[in-house]
Formats: sequence, C-alpha cells, structure tokens
Amino acid sequence: MGTLELQLESEPITKAQPSPVLFFETMNAYQRSAALKTAIELDLFTAIGETSGSLHELTEKTGCSERGLQALCDFLVILGFLTKYLDESGDRYGLTPDSAAFLHKKSPRYLGMAVNFMASPFLVDAFKDLTAVVRAGGPPSGHKINQELPVWLDFARGMGPIMFPVAEQTAKLLEGDAEAKILDVSACHGLFGIAVARVNPNAKIVALDFPNVLAVAKENAERFGVADRYSLLPGDALVIPLGTGYDAVLIPNLLHHWDRQTIAAFLRKVYAALKPGGRVIVVEFAPNDDRVSPPIPASFVMNMLVNTPGGKAYTLNENLAMLEEAGFTSCDSFQLPPTFETAIVGLK
Amino acid sequence: MGTLELQLESEPITKAQPSPVLFFETMNAYQRSAALKTAIELDLFTAIGETSGSLHELTEKTGCSERGLQALCDFLVILGFLTKYLDESGDRYGLTPDSAAFLHKKSPRYLGMAVNFMASPFLVDAFKDLTAVVRAGGPPSGHKINQELPVWLDFARGMGPIMFPVAEQTAKLLEGDAEAKILDVSACHGLFGIAVARVNPNAKIVALDFPNVLAVAKENAERFGVADRYSLLPGDALVIPLGTGYDAVLIPNLLHHWDRQTIAAFLRKVYAALKPGGRVIVVEFAPNDDRVSPPIPASFVMNMLVNTPGGKAYTLNENLAMLEEAGFTSCDSFQLPPTFETAIVGLK
Repeated sequence: MGTLELQLESEPITKAQPSPVLFFETMNAYQRSAALKTAIELDLFTAIGETSGSLHELTEKTGCSERGLQALCDFLVILGFLTKYLDESGDRYGLTPDSAAFLHKKSPRYLGMAVNFMASPFLVDAFKDLTAVVRAGGPPSGHKINQELPVWLDFARGMGPIMFPVAEQTAKLLEGDAEAKILDVSACHGLFGIAVARVNPNAKIVALDFPNVLAVAKENAERFGVADRYSLLPGDALVIPLGTGYDAVLIPNLLHHWDRQTIAAFLRKVYAALKPGGRVIVVEFAPNDDRVSPPIPASFVMNMLVNTPGGKAYTLNENLAMLEEAGFTSCDSFQLPPTFETAIVGLK
Repeated sequence: MGTLELQLESEPITKAQPSPVLFFETMNAYQRSAALKTAIELDLFTAIGETSGSLHELTEKTGCSERGLQALCDFLVILGFLTKYLDESGDRYGLTPDSAAFLHKKSPRYLGMAVNFMASPFLVDAFKDLTAVVRAGGPPSGHKINQELPVWLDFARGMGPIMFPVAEQTAKLLEGDAEAKILDVSACHGLFGIAVARVNPNAKIVALDFPNVLAVAKENAERFGVADRYSLLPGDALVIPLGTGYDAVLIPNLLHHWDRQTIAAFLRKVYAALKPGGRVIVVEFAPNDDRVSPPIPASFVMNMLVNTPGGKAYTLNENLAMLEEAGFTSCDSFQLPPTFETAIVGLK
C-alpha cells in the first residue's frame, strides 16, 4: 500500500458565496454580554487602567486565575473593549478611549453600575422564552413591569450615569432664569428635573414616581444642591392628580411602556396640568419611520415586547402625532447627541 | 410668570468624544442570540422565503401575533438577517443571501438545527456565572463536558450541516484512489471520515467515538453510501487502543478540549497507530499568535474556558509545535475556506 499523497493543488473554493459569519456571531452573542458583565463585576477595566496591564499584574489585582483572565481579556480585545500589546515581557492589555471613559471606575462618566439593571435576571431571563412572547404578542401575565418592582430601584441607582447626559441635553431646552414650575413625571433617579433645576435657578421641580424610587431622586437632589426647590409627588402617574399650573412637564422614558390608548389618556391629563403656553417635553428612544434605524433606538422595541403588554419604541412621527392628538401645537423634536434619545416637545 | 422659552440655539455638543454605543450593544447582545433562536424555532426565514413577506401573511403562516412578529422582524433587519421594503401595501420583509442560504429550511445548506447545540441550556447557562469561572480558571466541578453527555447527541445531529463544508475541505487533502486505512477520532456525526470515503473509493474508515454518537455516524455513513467501508470503534479515545497501520488519522475538533499534557500523550498514541509515511490531520479553530484574530476562531477560547478544565483555542503555531513534539515531521497547515477552521498536518 503506497503512502497517501496530500492533494493540495485542488481548486481553491474562494468564489464569493454566502457566509455563516453573522449566524455564528449572533448565536454566540450572549457570550459578549456575559463577558462584559464579568469584566465589570471583576472591575477589570479599572485594574488595567491602574497597572501596566500585564496578565501577571492583573491576576494579582483581581485575584483571578491567569487562564480565566487571559481568555476574558483576549475576548474583550476581539469585542473592541481593550487593546493588546505584545512586547518582550509578554502580553499587555490597555483601555480603549471608550473603556477609559465609561468603564474605569474612577472616570466621572463610569457606567458600570448599569449592569445591575441591564443584566438583571428580571430582564435577561425574560428573553429565555422569546418564542412564546412572539407567539402571544407580549409577556406572560406573571411577568409584569410595574414601577413598584425592585428592578426599578436597580434602574434608578444603576442607570443614572447613562441618563445623566440625556438629562443634561434635555435641560438645555429650558435653560434660563424665568420662574418656572416643572413636573418631572416618572422621575426615578430624578436627573431630568434636577438638570432643569441646575440650569434655571428659579425652577421649582415636582418629582412624581413611586415612593421607593423617589427616595433615590431625593438623594440626587440633595447631592446636586437643589433639594430646596425639589418636592415629591409619590404615586402612579396614571392614577393620582398631577396638580396644575405647570410651565413644563417632563416625561422621560415613560410613554414607551404603554399602548397608544393609555398614552392618549395620559397626555390629555398632562395637557390639563399645564398652564397655557406651557410645554410638554417627552424624551424617548424614537426610531425613524422605517422602525429599523438608528439601530439602538430601533432595537429598544425588543425590550418593550418582552417586558410590557402594549409598549413599543414609537417612531418620532408617532410621538409627534400623539402630542398633536392630545391638543399640543408647535410640536417639534430635538436630537440629544451624544445620547441615543430624542426630545419631542409640544406647546399648550 | 412668563412663558418658558425653549433654548435651542445653545452650542451643539458634537465634538468627537467617547461613545457608549459599544457598551450598550454588548450589554444587550444576549437579545440577538434570543431573537435568532426564536426566528429559527418559528421557522420565520422559511415563511418569509415562501410568502410575499408581508406581516399579514407571516402572522398567518407562523400563527404568531402581529405585535411580536413586527418587533422580531424589525430587529432581525437591524441585525442584518432580513431586508425590509416599504410599499403602499405596508412593510414587507425579505431574506438576505446569507439567510436564504443558511436559514431557509429548504436550502441544502440549512444550519437551523445548530440551535439545538449552540443555544442548548447546557452551554448557554454555563456563561451565567462567568465571573466565578474566570476567578477559578475553569468551570465548577459539576459542569463537565464529556462525550457521553446528551449534548453531544445534539452536537452530532445539529452541527453536521456546519461541519459538512469543513469535512469536505479537509477531505480534499486525501483525495485519490490509493488504498487507505483511515482512523476518524472523535467521529461524532462522522462527516470527516465519510468525506474522505467519498473522495477516495478505496479508503476504509474506522470511526472512533462513544457509542451514543457513533449511532449518528453510522446513519450518516449509510446516507452517503459508504457504510460498506465504514467500521465503528466505540470508546474513549484516551483509553482504548486505537489499532495500528493507519495511513491517516483524522482528529477534528477534539484537541481544544484538553490541556497540553493530555494532548501530548494522545498525539504520541496517534503516532504509534500510524504506519510510517502516514499522516495526522488535526482540524481546529486555530487563531493567530496574537490570540485575538481571526475573531471567530479566537473567540472560541471562551467556550473552552467555560466548558473544560484545561482546554483552549490553541494557536496555529501551538498546534504545529504539539505535532512536532509528538514526533511528526513536515508539519504544515491549510486554511479551509469558507469555514473558520484550519487543518494542521504532520507526517510520521
């Protein structure tokens, strides 16, 4: 029997053809979320920022195995969260500008505590039976987001840093020194109303939300030195009276939880609470009419499908139409760069 | 009290600055895996391929809610799995070339059954406590991949279509009509040995694996009409005698499960089983020396960290070195496009 010869001159299969890359990467995309959560839990980005980034130093600083850290760091390089240097002393990892800004614990823009909300089992596990949700058109009756859930405390405490620039950009719409009474509906962390109080020394804020999260809003109002112009209105925005005579009503990240009928009734209630000439300012993930762009606001629809019976990432034009149907005029919208959100504004 | 004026002429915040896009997208990446799994479970891609792709027809064909399907289809457009057309009759969805090739059930290259393995709770849930795995350097002792687990039946049945082109490309190395006795170690679905039998009418294949998965290999050998040249060697490759006098030993997708010591011992055993002039053909996800490219082979390290006590995505040069240490000469490697794998070959 002769020696087998390798056949290496056969025609190369390199003509353009469909690629399974996207299929592979998407099937395994859950590993990306897990890796980022783990890196944040281990405070790996801070450890890299504060050392030479060598594996040896990272194992010492984090108390983790070298095998685990090497795999994790390499994967984070692939995902774009770290850089990697090869020198004579071995591999070293470094922070990208985004990671230095958002994932180093000593950065003022640190976002790491958002994992407590974004990676909470309440949200993540809701996607485990997405097939049943798509069939039924909404979550099972046992899975109901309401504002009294503990997860909203995670939101209030964890998502503040993500919402801070949105709130700051939104508040610019109300910059000035006119006396103003402002209602912040679904205040949560309170940052939207607080941002307005910071850019207008004569603004008085009424923060509406469930009592558990209003405690966080109150803490934040104190932290930012506006507590003397900050009052609390605890309760369910759909149920309690809102008060009257407001110069502006802020509705940040709330309408997407509801169906259009609920929104219509609520916006009429807001209209009634404003004084003539007052403004409603809705802040939303508002995709374009195609509902598939920009990607981050448009993707938000999945969260609403899985977590609410009738919510949606309403398009910008749907938001404008809802304000007009409620009686608002001069409706207009403003992007809030560098965030992914849009302010939609109407005049009474 | 005057009317609040909107301050819209404030300086735009558009100077280049760090972006939280990657953070957001990665935190929510698990939703991508869930959406793809659901679309496959609902056979949505086939439904789109066989209809006009309108939401109305898709709800009828899949029995799903319109709300659920609209959100899912829009999200799949964002991810690049579907196209979207807006015409007077409403939105319609279409298949991309990749989705038509790999996700339409009537395509000969359909990969959908891979979800049974790639999205199996055994694999996915192992990432739930990645932090503990990174700390410890491997999975908890209760989570042990061995070839007798039911998940390997899911692999054998589900991953065949993904492995088919890898096997076909590998077999080209052994094309011809010389009489040859070939050992396929860790045969599983059997496709590697079967592909060799198909390109060499005088090749006789010995398929080694645990009995439960060898049943799948046998089925496949019959399906491809090579059963008369196909024999089974049931057992654990590390334990049982391999036989002797082989012209080639195929080791597809196996070495990555083991630490280097285990691999070294096993490769010496393979060396002994080959006749002089025989070849070992290892097939692997083999990244470059930097361990972060190409992305898919390099990312495979995470699976090995989470599922094996000592496995790894060994680099191409590590694979070559391991063959040389076991006594093989003329060691060389061959990319297997369009797949993500590499054949590493050595001569006795």
